[in-house]
Amino acid sequence: MTGTDPVLIFIDRAERGGEPPLFRQVSADEPQISVFDLGITRGDGIFESIGVFARWPLQLAPHIERLNRSARMLDLPELDDQAVETAITMAVEALPPLPEILVKIVVTRGLESASGLTTWVIASDNGDYSRERTVGLRAITLDRGYRSDVAETSPWLLQGAKTLSYAVNKAVLREAARRGAEEVIFISSDDYVLEGPASSLIVREGNTLITPVTSIGILPGTTQQAVFSHAAKHGLDTEYARLRTADLARADALWMVSSGRLVVPLNRVNETPVPVDAALTQKLLADLLAGEE
Amino acid sequence: MTGTDPVLIFIDRAERGGEPPLFRQVSADEPQISVFDLGITRGDGIFESIGVFARWPLQLAPHIERLNRSARMLDLPELDDQAVETAITMAVEALPPLPEILVKIVVTRGLESASGLTTWVIASDNGDYSRERTVGLRAITLDRGYRSDVAETSPWLLQGAKTLSYAVNKAVLREAARRGAEEVIFISSDDYVLEGPASSLIVREGNTLITPVTSIGILPGTTQQAVFSHAAKHGLDTEYARLRTADLARADALWMVSSGRLVVPLNRVNETPVPVDAALTQKLLADLLAGEE
Repeated sequence: MTGTDPVLIFIDRAERGGEPPLFRQVSADEPQISVFDLGITRGDGIFESIGVFARWPLQLAPHIERLNRSARMLDLPELDDQAVETAITMAVEALPPLPEILVKIVVTRGLESASGLTTWVIASDNGDYSRERTVGLRAITLDRGYRSDVAETSPWLLQGAKTLSYAVNKAVLREAARRGAEEVIFISSDDYVLEGPASSLIVREGNTLITPVTSIGILPGTTQQAVFSHAAKHGLDTEYARLRTADLARADALWMVSSGRLVVPLNRVNETPVPVDAALTQKLLADLLAGEE
Repeated sequence: MTGTDPVLIFIDRAERGGEPPLFRQVSADEPQISVFDLGITRGDGIFESIGVFARWPLQLAPHIERLNRSARMLDLPELDDQAVETAITMAVEALPPLPEILVKIVVTRGLESASGLTTWVIASDNGDYSRERTVGLRAITLDRGYRSDVAETSPWLLQGAKTLSYAVNKAVLREAARRGAEEVIFISSDDYVLEGPASSLIVREGNTLITPVTSIGILPGTTQQAVFSHAAKHGLDTEYARLRTADLARADALWMVSSGRLVVPLNRVNETPVPVDAALTQKLLADLLAGEE
């Protein structure tokens, strides 16, 4: 967090159909959420984080699509995409022209005693990730506990939804810190490589960028999709695959990619050093930071 | 929720050691939580619900102990048990003398940008569960996705901690509703009976009350412990065991027990009718509602 105050906008939907939603800009320094909101009592809600570079929201449509996908997985009422996009624009325009902005959209199921979603958009300075993007991070692999087929067999486990119930996603980072690392690669109980607690994994093998298929119960990665869309001009093929833990050890390079940090190389997985492909990292970052898709 | 307003008390701990905590009673109708609170952004916190019957908080010490157990599992700073107990007493005394009160204690990791827990206690009318306690509920079994040994192999999955990340616990109740049921019994991926999304399971086989062992990654049940403590006077033995899904079908009676609803019989599991032991249910309820341990 820097000296720039975040901009917080709530979207209050009209009680009667047909009325336009109200955009309510309020102070992020004041409490705004009820202790009865299911977002806090049960982590019962969804979110998206969108990077805004050179005033351009990266992968806006895939983020909105993924927000709706999460909403469907949680049986939430239909979202008002147009209102969300309007609030994003309002929030970004209310900030000074920072080089990197992070916009977060949160939708909770609302109050325990009432019907009606709680929805807000918050835009803030994305901060400085130049060190992570250059030096890279040490990662460990950790058991996610779930088989790679639970998204199909047991959709109530919400694997592949981006929910507010992220206590495990925070716990694994503390476990990583205890083991001298900063990132985590989740592994399914049947030994497939999944994703990070807040990012997607991209593996380079020769001239091919590979990421795990989403059918194994992971989020469709918006930043990963953006990276893949630029791959051809760097002479790279792209592939969605089922990767094993052992595949990580023979990778030519590994990255964790996400909306805020964008493209961060891994320099170690567990005890194994991983080559940092600094040149390609910079190319991929430049593609995304240019503010066009 | 009835006509009695809930009583909400925040516990603000002094910034300097040695200073006593401040108890801040505020309106539960006003927003009290920041959008930067990790409780809402990541479901990163813990809670307990305590039933108060005839002004007596049932199993207070085991609830406080379990709150501390959850805090340790989430690497939260040490809690101030005395302050929590004081706030519980204050909140209950501020309510009119209702026959059944539910007290909820919530502890979040606090603001993203600051250190310091957010802690509150809220006391409200427990409402009327006489129908559930008499007629019983229809339950379905659902895959929890985790093996029965994950609490030992993968403690970062937080199985056995009572966290605010309960989106799955809500999702399974919606799945139950779709299948014409009101309760869920979680089953481990290696087919052990676990617990409900917000309650413990007690099985009667002849003159023995049986509940699953906690080492398979479930919460120690405070209400289950209270029920077991009264069993001998009803001529019943008690046992902690590893139960299989098939064991449910031959039970003489089944109950889901929890702090608010207390003892609720199940009258069906999946497609199998289960006998409701109305006489024993009433005895067990009377033990707990009497307000003594």
